[in-house]
Amino acid sequence: MATTEKTLDDLFLDTLKDIYFAEKQIVKALPKMAKAAQSAELAAGFQQHLEETEGHLQRLNQVFDLIGKAPRGKTCDAILGILEEGKSIMDEYKDTAALDAGLVAAAQAVEHYEIARYGTLKSWAAQLGLDEAVKLLDATLSEEVATDEKLSQLGEADANRRAA
Amino acid sequence: MATTEKTLDDLFLDTLKDIYFAEKQIVKALPKMAKAAQSAELAAGFQQHLEETEGHLQRLNQVFDLIGKAPRGKTCDAILGILEEGKSIMDEYKDTAALDAGLVAAAQAVEHYEIARYGTLKSWAAQLGLDEAVKLLDATLSEEVATDEKLSQLGEADANRRAA
Repeated sequence: MATTEKTLDDLFLDTLKDIYFAEKQIVKALPKMAKAAQSAELAAGFQQHLEETEGHLQRLNQVFDLIGKAPRGKTCDAILGILEEGKSIMDEYKDTAALDAGLVAAAQAVEHYEIARYGTLKSWAAQLGLDEAVKLLDATLSEEVATDEKLSQLGEADANRRAA
Repeated sequence: MATTEKTLDDLFLDTLKDIYFAEKQIVKALPKMAKAAQSAELAAGFQQHLEETEGHLQRLNQVFDLIGKAPRGKTCDAILGILEEGKSIMDEYKDTAALDAGLVAAAQAVEHYEIARYGTLKSWAAQLGLDEAVKLLDATLSEEVATDEKLSQLGEADANRRAA
């Protein structure tokens, strides 16, 4: 059965499809988060991350190309659940002083999901000898980590505004 | 309407309930992951994290107590989605050489969700002046970060075994 047994290549492809689907969902969610944000700074942060996310999709297209596969998503229950929680916060905290804190938290849950997935994909790409893919995945991973740090700063700035 | 408007206290409590629910789900999932793991080292890692997770629930009980609320969970779609993906991997990669790599990836997605939530809760506890809660949340956060790092090492060890 060795020829039909699933391998790390399959796991890499499955996970690539998972994050491809997730990034597409994030592209849809970010404009709503930017519109909901109360502070101009947070809205601008979401807008900037939307542009970055479009770049991440381009890099994923390149990784699919490197392994000779067409870019395709696969339903990712994790990101659907994470974004659903973000939507609940937007509804439940609409027009309250705590809304931006909730939006920052929702965005950081998204970032950490991506950090986990890109970290895994980068490690597997290295194991599979896909050096070009390692570079592409690492570039996106670095941007996700930077976004998470920026969100922490925006959260602090929001706290200072509320305290003032 | 100032008296009925939701505040950061509500957001803190809602998110506490979210992670409380999540930790309870993780307590149910970890024995299944330990049983599925092929390497004894990974199985032991999941078993150890189960004990830690029980400690995280105890700390959450203390935080609920500090804010004068009874410990209660609230359905967390994010963790349900993340664990569902882990279950799919256990099914689809059963008895294959890629199973442990998939289990490590699934566990790291769980860890990153927790890192995001505990980081947020710690920051909000500080803003709310809940110094004891900050200490408790930080203790768990440090353990989640350490577990994520340990999982990366177990992933490398697994790769070396497969390559050997």
